[in-house]
Amino acid sequence: MQAEACIINSSVNQYWLTGFIFNGYILVYQTGESLLFVRRPHTLSGENIIGIRKPEQIPDILREIGLTIPKKVLLEIDTISYSTAVRLQAALEMPEIGNISSDIRKIRSVKSEYELNQIRESATIHTKVYELIPSLYHKGMTDVELQIEIERQMRLHGSMGIFRSFGENMDIFMGSMLAGDNAQTASPFDYALGGGGISPLLPLGANGTLLTPGTTLMVDMAGNYRPNMDDMSRTFVIEHAPEIAYKAHQVSLDIIHTLEASTKAGVSCAELWHQAEKIVKENKLEPYFMGTEQQAKFVGHGVGLEINEPPVLTPRSKEVLETGMAIAIEPKFVLPGIGAVGIENTYIVHDDRLEKVTLYEEALGILI
Amino acid sequence: MQAEACIINSSVNQYWLTGFIFNGYILVYQTGESLLFVRRPHTLSGENIIGIRKPEQIPDILREIGLTIPKKVLLEIDTISYSTAVRLQAALEMPEIGNISSDIRKIRSVKSEYELNQIRESATIHTKVYELIPSLYHKGMTDVELQIEIERQMRLHGSMGIFRSFGENMDIFMGSMLAGDNAQTASPFDYALGGGGISPLLPLGANGTLLTPGTTLMVDMAGNYRPNMDDMSRTFVIEHAPEIAYKAHQVSLDIIHTLEASTKAGVSCAELWHQAEKIVKENKLEPYFMGTEQQAKFVGHGVGLEINEPPVLTPRSKEVLETGMAIAIEPKFVLPGIGAVGIENTYIVHDDRLEKVTLYEEALGILI
Repeated sequence: MQAEACIINSSVNQYWLTGFIFNGYILVYQTGESLLFVRRPHTLSGENIIGIRKPEQIPDILREIGLTIPKKVLLEIDTISYSTAVRLQAALEMPEIGNISSDIRKIRSVKSEYELNQIRESATIHTKVYELIPSLYHKGMTDVELQIEIERQMRLHGSMGIFRSFGENMDIFMGSMLAGDNAQTASPFDYALGGGGISPLLPLGANGTLLTPGTTLMVDMAGNYRPNMDDMSRTFVIEHAPEIAYKAHQVSLDIIHTLEASTKAGVSCAELWHQAEKIVKENKLEPYFMGTEQQAKFVGHGVGLEINEPPVLTPRSKEVLETGMAIAIEPKFVLPGIGAVGIENTYIVHDDRLEKVTLYEEALGILI
Repeated sequence: MQAEACIINSSVNQYWLTGFIFNGYILVYQTGESLLFVRRPHTLSGENIIGIRKPEQIPDILREIGLTIPKKVLLEIDTISYSTAVRLQAALEMPEIGNISSDIRKIRSVKSEYELNQIRESATIHTKVYELIPSLYHKGMTDVELQIEIERQMRLHGSMGIFRSFGENMDIFMGSMLAGDNAQTASPFDYALGGGGISPLLPLGANGTLLTPGTTLMVDMAGNYRPNMDDMSRTFVIEHAPEIAYKAHQVSLDIIHTLEASTKAGVSCAELWHQAEKIVKENKLEPYFMGTEQQAKFVGHGVGLEINEPPVLTPRSKEVLETGMAIAIEPKFVLPGIGAVGIENTYIVHDDRLEKVTLYEEALGILI
C-alpha cells in the first residue's frame, strides 16, 4: 500500500529512530519532518515533541499546526494490539491500515557502523562472561544453579536483563542453558532448542537438571550488553563425555567454519542452510540436527535490537546477505542420553567476508 | 457482542484455562467442549488437542469432526497483534471481531482458593528474600549492585525471572529499586514510580546511584515465586535519614493501616483512593504522593498471573471489591533530595476483612 505516513509505537523502533523510548507515537510523513506525540514521560520535551493524553487529540493538533491528516497510514501491525490499531484508525479517521512492520525489520537488518560497533562491544563482554563459566561451576550443581551465577556475572558486566525479541512466541529469561536430556524437551517457543524450564508459565531452558559427569551443557545466554546485541552459544562437558559428543561437536565446528569461509555479501540465506545440511547428511546426523522430537529447520538468524531479526537462514528463504548485516549461525545437535552440542557465533557481513565477533574458545569446554 | 465462541492465544490465559502454555489457540464454544489447536510443542497430545501448522486449517478440521464454524468470535484483542487477529478473522471467515480481553481480566480478578494459596506462598518466600537485604548490603554499593545480589537470591529462592504484566507500556526486569533522586525520574512505563534505568532500552528503576547516607532506597522487587504473584515494597534508609523521611513513611503506614482496617468485600475502589487522599492532604504531602514530576493517580491494583490486574484503586474507578480478589495497596511518597518512602502490601479480600499476606517488617529498615 502506498501511504502518506507511518506511525511507530514499538519501543524497539522508537529507540531505533530516536535513541529513546516513550509511551506514545512517532508520526513519520513520507516527506517533511516527523512528530513525536508523547503520553509519558510528561517531562520529555524538545523540537517536534508534542505532549498528549490520548491519540484522539492528534487530528486537532495536526490541523492547528497546519499539517494534513494522513489518510493512508502504515502501522506496526505485527506488534501493535488489535485494540490499539483500531483505536488509532478511528482517532485518525483512517479508512485503511497498512503494514510497516516487515519493511522496518528489513531496513533495520542492515546496520550502521555505530550499531555494528555495539554488537562488537557486546560480544567482547559476552566473551569475558563466558570465560568465567568454568570458575563458577562446582560439582553437584544443577543447570539452574549455574545459570544463576552466570546471570549475576552478566548483570555485573552491564547486561540490562531483559532482551528483546520479535513475535508472540518468544518468551525467555536472560537466555537458555540445556543440560542432558532436557535439551530434547520440546518447547512452545520459537527458539532453536527447547527445554522444560522451572515454571509452567515459562516452559523453556534449564529445568533443575543435575550436571552429571558424562553429559553436556549448552550455554546460550543473552549477549545484551549493548542495545544492539550479539548471540553466542558454547558447549561444556561435565568432566567427560562419550566420543559421539566430541564427534558431533566437531561436525558443528566443520559446518560453522565451512559457512564462515564461503559466506559474504551476495550469498543467499538458503545456500547457508543447504551447505550446513550437506555436512549433516554426510555425517548421518540428520535425526539430531537442531533437536530430536522437534527440529528447527534453520541454522541461523539476524541479530540486532532484537534477538531474532531477518534474515533467517532457512531452506526456503529468498533473502540474500548484504554488507552491514549481523547474523548468528548456530549449528547444533541434540544427542539422546548426553545433551546438546554445537556452537553459535555472531558475524558481521562484509563485501568479501564474514567478520566473527564472538571469540570465546570454540572447542568443547570441560567443567570439573 | 453476543458471540458463539472465543479464541484464547495469550500465554497467561492459556495457563489460566489449562495449566500450561503452548503456541496455538484454545477455541472455547459458548456450550460444549473446548478444543486446543496446537502448533508447538509438536509433542503435546491428549483429549481435545489437535496439532496444526497454521490457523487456516481450523475450519476444515471443525467440519471434519462435525462442529460448526463459529461466525461471531471474541478474541483477546487487547493483546493479540493486529496481524494475527486479521489472519484469524480471514482463516475462520469471521465477519466481525469482538473483544474477550477485559471480560477475562475481570473474571480472573476473583481467584480460586488454589490461586490465593499461590499468592500466600509467593508472599512467604518474598518475605524471606527481603529479610536477606540488610546482609546483602555493604557500604559503597550502588542501587544496581545491591539489586543484582537481591536478584540472585530471588532466583535461588525459585523466582522464574520474568514476570508478566498487561499492556503495551509495562517493560521491567525483575522489579524496581529506587535510590535517592532517581525516584523522581519520570519513566515512559505505567508503573507507580519511575527511575532512569541503566539502558536507554529500559528506562526504569535503578540507574547506578551510589547508596549514600541520608537517602532512602525503595525496594519493589517482583514476588514471582508462584504463577500467581504477590507484590511488596519496603523502604530502607542508608545509615540515617532526615526526619521528614520518617514522617512521610509514617503517613504511608497510617494510610495503609487505615485502608486495611476499613476494607472488605463490597467497598468501592474509588473509596480506597479517597481515604488515602484525605490522609495525604491532612499531612500536606500532596506534592510528593506517588511521585513528584509525574504522579500516578492510583493507590493500588489487583495482582495475580499478571502484576497489574483489575481492580485499579483510582479516584474514578467504578469497581467494587469482591471476596477472592487479591490487591496490592502502595501509598508512596517521593521526597526531593532524599528518595522514595512508603510501603506496599498484598491483601486477599474476604467478606469481612482484608488478609495481609506480605509480612516483612513495615518500619523503615536501616542499611549499615
